[in-house]
Amino acid sequence: MNNLSHALQAWVSRLGADCVVTDEASLSRAETATYATPQRIPAVLRPADRAEVQACLRIAHEYRVPVYPISTGKNWGYGSRVPVQDGCVVIDLGRLNRIVAYDEALAYVTVEPGVTQRQLYEFLQARGSRLFLSATGSTPDSSLIGNILERGLGEGPYGDRFSYVCALEVVLPTGETLTTGFGRFPSAHAAPINRWGVGPYLDGLFTQSNLGIVTQMTLWLTPLPHTFHLFWYAVDDDARLGPLVDALRELRLTGVVQSAFVIANDVRVFSNLQQYPWAAADGATPLPPALREALRRQHGVGRWNGEGALYAVSEAHGQALRQVIEARLGPVTDSLHFLDDAVARQPGPQLAAAFPGADLDTLLTGYWDNPKRGVPTEQFLRMAYWRKRNPRPAQGMDLDRDGCGLFWCAPAAPFDGAHVQRVASLLTETTEAYGYEPNIGLNCISERNINVTAAVIYDRDVAGEDERALACYHALTGRVTQAGYYPYRLGTHGMTSLPPAQDDYGPILARLKQALDPNGVLAPGRYEFST
Amino acid sequence: MNNLSHALQAWVSRLGADCVVTDEASLSRAETATYATPQRIPAVLRPADRAEVQACLRIAHEYRVPVYPISTGKNWGYGSRVPVQDGCVVIDLGRLNRIVAYDEALAYVTVEPGVTQRQLYEFLQARGSRLFLSATGSTPDSSLIGNILERGLGEGPYGDRFSYVCALEVVLPTGETLTTGFGRFPSAHAAPINRWGVGPYLDGLFTQSNLGIVTQMTLWLTPLPHTFHLFWYAVDDDARLGPLVDALRELRLTGVVQSAFVIANDVRVFSNLQQYPWAAADGATPLPPALREALRRQHGVGRWNGEGALYAVSEAHGQALRQVIEARLGPVTDSLHFLDDAVARQPGPQLAAAFPGADLDTLLTGYWDNPKRGVPTEQFLRMAYWRKRNPRPAQGMDLDRDGCGLFWCAPAAPFDGAHVQRVASLLTETTEAYGYEPNIGLNCISERNINVTAAVIYDRDVAGEDERALACYHALTGRVTQAGYYPYRLGTHGMTSLPPAQDDYGPILARLKQALDPNGVLAPGRYEFST
Repeated sequence: MNNLSHALQAWVSRLGADCVVTDEASLSRAETATYATPQRIPAVLRPADRAEVQACLRIAHEYRVPVYPISTGKNWGYGSRVPVQDGCVVIDLGRLNRIVAYDEALAYVTVEPGVTQRQLYEFLQARGSRLFLSATGSTPDSSLIGNILERGLGEGPYGDRFSYVCALEVVLPTGETLTTGFGRFPSAHAAPINRWGVGPYLDGLFTQSNLGIVTQMTLWLTPLPHTFHLFWYAVDDDARLGPLVDALRELRLTGVVQSAFVIANDVRVFSNLQQYPWAAADGATPLPPALREALRRQHGVGRWNGEGALYAVSEAHGQALRQVIEARLGPVTDSLHFLDDAVARQPGPQLAAAFPGADLDTLLTGYWDNPKRGVPTEQFLRMAYWRKRNPRPAQGMDLDRDGCGLFWCAPAAPFDGAHVQRVASLLTETTEAYGYEPNIGLNCISERNINVTAAVIYDRDVAGEDERALACYHALTGRVTQAGYYPYRLGTHGMTSLPPAQDDYGPILARLKQALDPNGVLAPGRYEFST
Repeated sequence: MNNLSHALQAWVSRLGADCVVTDEASLSRAETATYATPQRIPAVLRPADRAEVQACLRIAHEYRVPVYPISTGKNWGYGSRVPVQDGCVVIDLGRLNRIVAYDEALAYVTVEPGVTQRQLYEFLQARGSRLFLSATGSTPDSSLIGNILERGLGEGPYGDRFSYVCALEVVLPTGETLTTGFGRFPSAHAAPINRWGVGPYLDGLFTQSNLGIVTQMTLWLTPLPHTFHLFWYAVDDDARLGPLVDALRELRLTGVVQSAFVIANDVRVFSNLQQYPWAAADGATPLPPALREALRRQHGVGRWNGEGALYAVSEAHGQALRQVIEARLGPVTDSLHFLDDAVARQPGPQLAAAFPGADLDTLLTGYWDNPKRGVPTEQFLRMAYWRKRNPRPAQGMDLDRDGCGLFWCAPAAPFDGAHVQRVASLLTETTEAYGYEPNIGLNCISERNINVTAAVIYDRDVAGEDERALACYHALTGRVTQAGYYPYRLGTHGMTSLPPAQDDYGPILARLKQALDPNGVLAPGRYEFST
């Protein structure tokens, strides 16, 4: 018997045969992402709790069998459930789905990796909580912990999500456990509310890494504001993007805008409103310029379209902030509109007059079901169906199942007009050269940083497209890194795409890996930069 | 020749004899802290740049001689320049004092460890910058990097300072180097503005640790506000502290107050205003209750006295925030006063009427020279001279030189009235039992966490006091940790004071140390928890 067989036997005897999944259909689903993935998965383990996760890892360690953890496996556009390397057994943490602690006064929850955005939202709603978590644009069924460990991007006050978590309970590849911060001490009152603890701060080691499996995490929440305003703005000319970005940076730095938001190019907006206009384009791709222009007019969309939110503690506070935003953004935008709950609750002629030509249903859905007020929504997933010929499902979208082709290339750039324009141009040129539309969002995640997210969207059911899209992805990554804009996050195909470090990072990271995973069994190749 | 002699010879040949200090007077100064320290220092090295720091460490590594880095050595109350263990050669980084980069638009500077609060402040003033760094209450001559690596506390918007830095250039004990975040890549535009980079986030490893020497760091700065308000509030009864803390938490969580601030007990305030009233107390210690009451009346001080700042982008914005604060804090305080630049610039009858009985000079100095607007000041150091019999110097205070006895015990607690009252009671009882006044500040550093800082202040020139104060410090640490409030930071005497972890933290940390410092030469015993 080889190592894998020994390990499988041990896992079956520890977890039960039901929780060591090896049927072809299940494995085939797990091997399917939003792009081509040749990796094979010998089995999927389904531990029920931390002790079983420890057992899974001890067995992997003993028999030197590589394993790859997933939370809910919705890492769409970055690899879904598929391990970076071939032959890894997947550890599916979906059954660890408890909300372990909840404190309304101190505004936190402690969750396990199977807890989804939707589950937390419904939990808080059911309790009449005044708290919310800045949601992401991904599916409501995505894992909170999974996204945060990838240092994913929310929208709203705690958009840079990893900045607002603590007390990670981690199982190391050896089966050892660790709770970060003050959590290592008995009855530490500050464990859920202090990020650092005493001694080295270790949480970061377990983000974008293959050094441990996080089985619990405390997430901080934000109180719902007294007054919420959403505002939309647009520029009709690429040349106006730079000044807009610079004005927004000032609003962020001075604390007028205190939350993460996105500026989308026209194609990004179209792809959320409709599928590719196959008939009007007479089947041709990429989108002809005249048709792109027509779609902008049809939907009342600018070249670049931004959103933003105000969180105010009183009417006067909201008005004061709104005045500053109007004064600053008015001169650098071609349109600027505000909406608040009072107006949104009485959608009559007043609303129609304020948003001439807009689809009011879409507008109001976007207003109420907004990640900036903590509501997870499927509405941003629709973009993945842009190039599909069959209609997208109204809900329950599943990009892996539906053959939606999606690669994310997401370089980080300074929150600076000139830089952002340059990155956007590079991404646009390269995407178009491969026959795709530039589908670009500017994720304005913090005061100084913008993660520019470019999506390569295609139909996996069209022969040759997997190869062409992969080539486009590699070209995009190469262009932006050569220009000095490195991705903030990597998909499975990106793990070997970065240039070597100019310092001793490679050997240092290798020694940390060796210290925590001496047999190298956890997620080999994942954010593992040996040079 | 022993290892130390070999190493000294190698250091002299690399740095020059001038920069390997071994004269008795210098070593004796370096061995002096604000409490008794038996550790002896064989030499002080003074490298000029990163290459020399690398050389210092390679030699230490080769000859297995323990070394201990200091930035400017002003870690007062926690050990000053003195290594945790006996026989360590000190590496003084004071000559690395360049401000390497400065960006007014993106609001950051990159500094070396010798750069002080004063130096950065003067640098920004000289350039007419609109930016500031939330200052600490320590000396203007303290190192920025040294404080941040201890995860020290500023006051103002970026009070939790380690949250607002990135791109650490680190020299490992092996002599290898690493720049964290995107800094490991050539020409990475996001290096100074993105905290995380791509791959595991490593910065935390080099805070409160002995794993590397940081030779550069990028610090983020805040724009000066359009309108600045300072406000002061007090409660006259210990029982009112809890409700005040709860009200302040809501102001923090809802973003009305966006900056770190301190609430001080009466003794903390007195100790900044005057020295111990030896004559009135007829030489007796601790401070008799009647005299404490008299001092409160004399200075117009409450049992607990808080400050706070508003940063507004317009007059209307400031007024809106002020109204919310007045509505929320009015009912839970016995006094509440605001001051803004307009009133402070015309200090006439208006000011006197608003602050009846106050010393207007002290008030205005506190207003203008305030760490919450980025002005480093010596005013909070005066407390360390409280028990001295000779007058304190008007400026150039040096606690080591002047025999000021000072221990900090600084447990972290939830931002919650009941918790804070409990910690304050524990600290008060224990301090008084050892014959000292409870000198307590509540460092409200973030939305959910308060670091309660208790100072044991004594006169090192009085026989027996070093021993008594140390016993008091150990008793304080024992009491608070037993009650579940663990210190956020440790002095040299505290490194072995914590209970063992309930998980596998000890062996895991030991393996990380082994991976980065195989010969164990860097700062042995510093935040090194083996059990």
